[in-house]
Amino acid sequence: MSGQQATYMRTEIGQQPAALRATIAALLPRAAEATVLARDTRQVLFIARGTSDNAAVYGSYVIQAYAGRLATLASPSIATAYRSRVDLSGVLAVALSQSGKTEEIVETMAWASDCGAATLAITNGAASPLAETADVAFVTQAGTERAVPATKTFTTQLAALAVLAIGLGADLDPGELRQAPDEIESLLAGPGDLDPIVTELAGDHGVVVSGRGLAYAAALELALKLKEACYLHAMGLSYADLLHGPIAVVDAQTPAILLAADSGPTLRGTVELAARVTGAGARAYGIGGGDLLAAVCTRALPGPRLPEWLAPLGLIVPGQLLTEALSRRLGLDPDHPRGLSKVTQTA
Amino acid sequence: MSGQQATYMRTEIGQQPAALRATIAALLPRAAEATVLARDTRQVLFIARGTSDNAAVYGSYVIQAYAGRLATLASPSIATAYRSRVDLSGVLAVALSQSGKTEEIVETMAWASDCGAATLAITNGAASPLAETADVAFVTQAGTERAVPATKTFTTQLAALAVLAIGLGADLDPGELRQAPDEIESLLAGPGDLDPIVTELAGDHGVVVSGRGLAYAAALELALKLKEACYLHAMGLSYADLLHGPIAVVDAQTPAILLAADSGPTLRGTVELAARVTGAGARAYGIGGGDLLAAVCTRALPGPRLPEWLAPLGLIVPGQLLTEALSRRLGLDPDHPRGLSKVTQTA
Repeated sequence: MSGQQATYMRTEIGQQPAALRATIAALLPRAAEATVLARDTRQVLFIARGTSDNAAVYGSYVIQAYAGRLATLASPSIATAYRSRVDLSGVLAVALSQSGKTEEIVETMAWASDCGAATLAITNGAASPLAETADVAFVTQAGTERAVPATKTFTTQLAALAVLAIGLGADLDPGELRQAPDEIESLLAGPGDLDPIVTELAGDHGVVVSGRGLAYAAALELALKLKEACYLHAMGLSYADLLHGPIAVVDAQTPAILLAADSGPTLRGTVELAARVTGAGARAYGIGGGDLLAAVCTRALPGPRLPEWLAPLGLIVPGQLLTEALSRRLGLDPDHPRGLSKVTQTA
Repeated sequence: MSGQQATYMRTEIGQQPAALRATIAALLPRAAEATVLARDTRQVLFIARGTSDNAAVYGSYVIQAYAGRLATLASPSIATAYRSRVDLSGVLAVALSQSGKTEEIVETMAWASDCGAATLAITNGAASPLAETADVAFVTQAGTERAVPATKTFTTQLAALAVLAIGLGADLDPGELRQAPDEIESLLAGPGDLDPIVTELAGDHGVVVSGRGLAYAAALELALKLKEACYLHAMGLSYADLLHGPIAVVDAQTPAILLAADSGPTLRGTVELAARVTGAGARAYGIGGGDLLAAVCTRALPGPRLPEWLAPLGLIVPGQLLTEALSRRLGLDPDHPRGLSKVTQTA
């Protein structure tokens, strides 16, 4: 930072390995609580908004891909605006909120309970209304987050969701989860050459951010960061939805950022998408995806050396660094985006 | 059109009243087939991409708000990329595809059936693989659609979903559905003053499109149209998600288009959002929402005089007209966006 004081956002990005270690140490021994809670349920319904909703997308993929249960996202307005009763017997409702204080989320979880669901909260707010009213609370150990754009609360939510998947019977190795903080530390120590990408994005109005399968959650979250902290017209889209129309928007002034794990069934499609983007005369920036993705991209940043199911915890990190640097390059304050406050209330 | 030949897109927008009449006449008498098919199910899972996915969002709201059943969206890559088995007993899987030929959707519906779901197809392709493999097929009567951006196939899908909600026990009046085509005809005859909005949007790079509850589906679909046919960085967001971060992106060069029914529990929030947008120095364009919304917007277009549950069928129509006119104003061909073809294949 050479004499400059680091932003809260940059500091908090750097705190992720420690926050993840503390969260995994606190929650992994409690996976069996999720097993017991979910015993009479067959599926998961996530309740969340904003960054927490992007974390929920990760949860839905990891649980469906590995735990054999349907896991989808709720529409909170069904509870809070339409006040409709829906049969939620056999459902485990999982509400995510950084603060645990967002009224819409607290109210929707209470509604889910009234409708027959078992409830689990994932929150950084130990004594929050959300933690106190849930059947079980997985409290993340992110510590205080001062920057409005969430970083360490997102990655610790992903870790809590990985624990939940294990609790729900996913055949995944908890030892791999324990290694994830080290790998994110390596990524922070050698994030690749961000500067030319920051310089090029500083001249763009819009960007498409895409990933498929598990990586989709990290793509959505990066698009949200770029909107919040850089006011960039960032459109987060799954690989498949992108091809159903929005691919038309990619051009010389509208690059694509593509995220992928180094392995897994969605890597090949992401490589093909990158080739299609550059073939159309647009820039493609790769995050992760190993040498295969880097080879077909205009520029690329290294991703984490993690198995695909954990890759999103690391794939977001280069994107966080990119967002923070771009925000400063644009003369903005990444810690305090216009029009936003830390606890969002939506009624 | 004064001597100019109308685009396919403009012609097909105008065909919507007839396409809706034919679709409602064909499907409303068949609502009981959905009742029987869903007898041993408790919830709905939608399988769709692109425009059809936006229609599915409408389906999920109308069924949850009025039929007391959980109704959420599937992630097709769980089936096609991860090849995971998920317990779908008690689930009615509803797949939507204009052509009925998109392999990803056909494959995901076959997967849902293998996983224990009952299956219903909503498609314009009477003899398509999707129609032929579903337990029940609701074939929409949109006729041939030549423009790549879907218009009449979207609104006829919404009509089919309204019939499905009625079949699932929603306490809604089929007579109101039968009147919808007339109301859309009125809207086409008096669409309000599009021209100044087209002129202003022609100078913008990006736009936020938002709606809440049932209107959210129409907002997502308008954002997709603007991306496809105008290459505009259009970000479709729910009212609540918009406040969780992306509101920062709205500024003098990035207006918001806000859609709302004339009544219902989400109108007030949309009016407040419009006031917040203009208060931040950005333009807010209203579609629908009656005098209340128009009064706080920079410019407004009339919406349909339809009950809230049917409003999305009409709310998209001014947006379709806006998209088609803006595409031509920008010197583009709305019928043939770059990089797109009519049947999208995603593997």
